[in-house]
Amino acid sequence: LKIRGVGLRAAGLRPAMEAAERREISAMLRGFTRRLFGGRTLPSYLVMAVLIVFIVGAALTMLLPKVVESGAVVDRREQVDQRTDAQNSFTIIMQSYNRTDLLLKLLNHYQAIPNLHKIIVVWNSVGIKVPKDLWDSLGPHPIPVVFKEQTVNRMRNRLEPILELETKAVLMLDDDILISAYDLDFAYSVWQQFPDQIVGFVPRKHVATSSGIYSYGSFELQNALGGSGDHYSMVLIGAAFFHASYLEKFKVQLPAVHSLIDKTQNCDDIAMNFIVAKYTGKPSGVFVKPVDMRNLEKDSNSGFNGMWHRAEHLLQRSWCLNQLAAIYGGMPLKYSNIMISQFGFPNYANHKTKS
Amino acid sequence: LKIRGVGLRAAGLRPAMEAAERREISAMLRGFTRRLFGGRTLPSYLVMAVLIVFIVGAALTMLLPKVVESGAVVDRREQVDQRTDAQNSFTIIMQSYNRTDLLLKLLNHYQAIPNLHKIIVVWNSVGIKVPKDLWDSLGPHPIPVVFKEQTVNRMRNRLEPILELETKAVLMLDDDILISAYDLDFAYSVWQQFPDQIVGFVPRKHVATSSGIYSYGSFELQNALGGSGDHYSMVLIGAAFFHASYLEKFKVQLPAVHSLIDKTQNCDDIAMNFIVAKYTGKPSGVFVKPVDMRNLEKDSNSGFNGMWHRAEHLLQRSWCLNQLAAIYGGMPLKYSNIMISQFGFPNYANHKTKS
Repeated sequence: LKIRGVGLRAAGLRPAMEAAERREISAMLRGFTRRLFGGRTLPSYLVMAVLIVFIVGAALTMLLPKVVESGAVVDRREQVDQRTDAQNSFTIIMQSYNRTDLLLKLLNHYQAIPNLHKIIVVWNSVGIKVPKDLWDSLGPHPIPVVFKEQTVNRMRNRLEPILELETKAVLMLDDDILISAYDLDFAYSVWQQFPDQIVGFVPRKHVATSSGIYSYGSFELQNALGGSGDHYSMVLIGAAFFHASYLEKFKVQLPAVHSLIDKTQNCDDIAMNFIVAKYTGKPSGVFVKPVDMRNLEKDSNSGFNGMWHRAEHLLQRSWCLNQLAAIYGGMPLKYSNIMISQFGFPNYANHKTKS
Repeated sequence: LKIRGVGLRAAGLRPAMEAAERREISAMLRGFTRRLFGGRTLPSYLVMAVLIVFIVGAALTMLLPKVVESGAVVDRREQVDQRTDAQNSFTIIMQSYNRTDLLLKLLNHYQAIPNLHKIIVVWNSVGIKVPKDLWDSLGPHPIPVVFKEQTVNRMRNRLEPILELETKAVLMLDDDILISAYDLDFAYSVWQQFPDQIVGFVPRKHVATSSGIYSYGSFELQNALGGSGDHYSMVLIGAAFFHASYLEKFKVQLPAVHSLIDKTQNCDDIAMNFIVAKYTGKPSGVFVKPVDMRNLEKDSNSGFNGMWHRAEHLLQRSWCLNQLAAIYGGMPLKYSNIMISQFGFPNYANHKTKS
């Protein structure tokens, strides 16, 4: 009955939930019931019993404190129990492969972030037991952690739609990155103002050469547009907020893109930027300048290094750019040169230029 | 025939021009013709002559290079003749009072800004001749300058709708401030992404005390919302881009607000922030961190200092805040903590935090 309970609470607490979402949940419940009873028609007393459980559940839900949904970013801090309010909070999705020690550290680090609803660990260490017992034995923990065991180690597992995801906002994090609570809290408030874009901390760009072939990179590449400063056309999803609905869009895109990602075990983040740019017609990302973001890879004892250490990693990413442009029949990525910081943080004078 | 020519060119070059605007121009032309001929009916040969001039004008307009309007910020630099394209350029409005030497310096400084369409000087030095002859004698100048002589020295003259204003974007500048071309170019591109807000370089905030009385200020006031960093709720219009349509909204607002401004010769910028916040339901301003912005007041030989030197200046501004809140029946200003900088400028590493 756990799934039903979740569905009911979601329906009761989310006034803005679209009809489509409701239908989805009903369909899910029907499917669940069918699977449970092997597709046979249910006896009427069973139906009645289920109905009574529903009604009691709904009545109990009414007793929960009412959370008023507020669009204003500035109101967020006033909430007392953030976890009951899936609309004004976000879910961390973190894919883990072969670095359990690092994962447990990060799970501890990320327990006290404001507005965090839940952490979902996409467990790509196929054949290795999830560390759930260890985690639970050292509880209680303030934020629920869900381990999703995978049957195959694929890069794009983290972009599969997830049943346990109840918030509109996803914070996707690589399993070796540590970002300060200040940065995450601020970036989440920025995402609330740009909810259809990827709001994150790592910008990248594509550059078209005169031959028409694209290169992937960062500051080391020429500024594609000339002029002062630099531009970016992607924000990597290993340290970014984006809307949960993009997981659905990622799922239903052309199979050729899925094949590309599975073949390289790379480029899922580039593909996500293509989706957002194409869907919005805007630059896919909004870059927030981090105040304190660290790579913890060297803290791991597993001896396993991130996939971006592979010799072919960057070459693959340029290759992916060109493949994706071919699949899309054009280049949807758009440039931006906007960098957002928090006014008056880390110090009052941060809006003055040092001379 | 100058006004007709402008009307025609505008009609030909601006595909997005609303019907209302067209009607306005026709009405203006009719009014102009009536005034010209003292309201008498025109002889038919005169009407024919005017028509022929129109047709020839229209034909000549067709020969002008076609400027394709582009929503994308990044395309701006590719334009060859920026001045022909009123949609992708902005107009400087600068009010001048008693500091002609400073004005002439600034007019020279601001001649080579990208995407500048025209400079309009609101001449508040009533009874003193505009320096047009001197300006013209040292021409030619790349950007047209229009001097608008005023009959009374009022703070809010600069916010009157102006016939010569052809662009959607206004850059309003105090007559003692110098901002780098880099900053202006970038801020204009930001305004194109936030066209209903005031995009500028000087943020201020209101703070409500427990007594319900508002204070006006900057970093010296407490952070109204608590938490890390600071917030702002106004962006001053003495160094900011905003949409030309707000001049019309300023004109038709409650007379009580006009009286308040005329009584204090102050607070026109606070009133403008109220209008934008009320109209959009958003924070009125978007703060762009300037890289190089200077006050040139001390360069003036006129001995006249800016009005903000008056002892009562700041007290008046807090007073205005409370008066405006009373007139509005509430406080429309909203807080923001977003600060926008240009990615990769002034140096490639500006997105890294110095440790």
